[in-house]
Amino acid sequence: MKYKVGIVGATGAVGQELIKLLEKRKFPVKNLHLFASQKSVGKKTIFSGQSIEIETIKDFKGFDFIFLCAGRSVSQKYAEKITQEGALAIDSSSFFRYHPDVPLVIPEINPEAIKNHKGLISSPNCTTTIMLLPLFPLHKLFKIRRIVSTSYQAASGAGALGMTELLQETHSVLNGQPYERSVFQHPYAFNLFTHNSPLDSSGYVEEELKMIHETRKILNDDSIKISPTCVRVPVLRAHSLSMNVSFEKDVSLQEIYRILEQAPGIKILNDYNQHVFPMPVLASEKEEVLCGRIREDFTEKNTFNFWVAGDQLLKGAALNAIQIAELVTKRS
Amino acid sequence: MKYKVGIVGATGAVGQELIKLLEKRKFPVKNLHLFASQKSVGKKTIFSGQSIEIETIKDFKGFDFIFLCAGRSVSQKYAEKITQEGALAIDSSSFFRYHPDVPLVIPEINPEAIKNHKGLISSPNCTTTIMLLPLFPLHKLFKIRRIVSTSYQAASGAGALGMTELLQETHSVLNGQPYERSVFQHPYAFNLFTHNSPLDSSGYVEEELKMIHETRKILNDDSIKISPTCVRVPVLRAHSLSMNVSFEKDVSLQEIYRILEQAPGIKILNDYNQHVFPMPVLASEKEEVLCGRIREDFTEKNTFNFWVAGDQLLKGAALNAIQIAELVTKRS
Repeated sequence: MKYKVGIVGATGAVGQELIKLLEKRKFPVKNLHLFASQKSVGKKTIFSGQSIEIETIKDFKGFDFIFLCAGRSVSQKYAEKITQEGALAIDSSSFFRYHPDVPLVIPEINPEAIKNHKGLISSPNCTTTIMLLPLFPLHKLFKIRRIVSTSYQAASGAGALGMTELLQETHSVLNGQPYERSVFQHPYAFNLFTHNSPLDSSGYVEEELKMIHETRKILNDDSIKISPTCVRVPVLRAHSLSMNVSFEKDVSLQEIYRILEQAPGIKILNDYNQHVFPMPVLASEKEEVLCGRIREDFTEKNTFNFWVAGDQLLKGAALNAIQIAELVTKRS
Repeated sequence: MKYKVGIVGATGAVGQELIKLLEKRKFPVKNLHLFASQKSVGKKTIFSGQSIEIETIKDFKGFDFIFLCAGRSVSQKYAEKITQEGALAIDSSSFFRYHPDVPLVIPEINPEAIKNHKGLISSPNCTTTIMLLPLFPLHKLFKIRRIVSTSYQAASGAGALGMTELLQETHSVLNGQPYERSVFQHPYAFNLFTHNSPLDSSGYVEEELKMIHETRKILNDDSIKISPTCVRVPVLRAHSLSMNVSFEKDVSLQEIYRILEQAPGIKILNDYNQHVFPMPVLASEKEEVLCGRIREDFTEKNTFNFWVAGDQLLKGAALNAIQIAELVTKRS
């Protein structure tokens, strides 16, 4: 069985990773169509030795999978059409994530959720995915009571343009030249700032609210408590997270490591002798989320500090989306 | 009354700020001696319109104040001599901070501690000072039960060489050139890593342990609970902190803001309309610690998330040291 696959937003940072992953993971592609806006039409990308031209969207007839990774408004515009024409949409945007008919899936965590799909499956927020991947196997056994999560988020979360802006602005600053930003409001070179998503009346930014609400949906548990702080740091493509996690049940540091060493999608990086722990340069372009320097929090019972770094474009976006598609192909 | 003042480590990042602050704050200097290692001897610095030559240490006779800001080993070497020769040493290093005879002072918090000094007063760790300045006025009224503190620490914490290394490595990365690091173990350009201080058997780094133990000494309260995570980010000279703080007594967000608006050394920066909150570029070269985006933590009673940024070289080091000296001059 081979599939006709389309990528909407193929020239973006996530789209480009999806093309590489389809090949690397040997996804059974019959043919691949790459969609982007008019200005990219005619550009070519190599996929499995073939040159594929970027095109604009006409219709989705005959497609099996459409990956939506061009942002909320594009997902909103095309989702219904994709579904009506019989393809399955896998949406990396936030637009449908809370819709009761749309499964929100991290394949290592809630694969069973896909069975109720109605032609559309959402892939979660990148920070949420990177947070939950190491915590889920522990939650299953020891039940998480509360998470205080503090993020160090890379430029890639704002797409290819965000990454370019960080590099260009830094270059200008080092050369004493002026630079006009178009993606981020605040200086980004050698600076950091509250995550640039819109603020809520509670003082939380949208990114933080996503972490709360998406976690509840993915874990199907509204009792889990999350207190998030999201910060944009001048790093290119991997998000890091410091997480203070309290469990309901008794658990030891040894048990935590034993479980995470066998958990899917996680790599323990914990070199106390060499002072090497997860960090963006090591997590970038890796499929696994790196996890280490887990420490007992001596101030609260059954509480531990976790430190993780994961590639925002891979497990945070493109990899999770393709894993959803792989799950569908295995179950169909 | 005017004083004979010496700065040990005058060519370093903190030493340079001290020279500027002595002039800016009109500290009553009779004469100023600048000490550094042999390789800097003969270099000149302008202070109050006068050119002062860097010299090596001979003795401390006739000095009133010696600011020690050349690191632990230099403080260890000279502290006794300074005291014996009748000068007051104000030490920015960590060497004497836990000594029972040495007051550890943040003038806005525990000025009374200086009265027991025996010729040596320590200035606290930069991250600890930036954390405690906004929390102390709240602790006095509502008693802090627990702090989960997560840091975003700048290059300046590793001195002038650390700042230069960040700039030079970033320049090399942008130009595709190799770069040999001498200060930091890990890549720093567009990367971040666990704070580069030594690890303890508990998994905590020394910087984190300083935050715990120095806080207890400064607040004279061993019951206060702190769970710290310290991370080095590619920022030049201001540290940022995300702090999740639980209070024993009932307190509202309005009360917190009302108290912090009047607290010394703090500036509230909380522009929800323009999405402007504390950040390193705004905190750099400012004497005040910026504090904002305080949010109710809906997962725990009387708990709030705080976001602060403070200049590591100023309130985190040189400013606090000179404020200690000012306190001594006022009380003598």
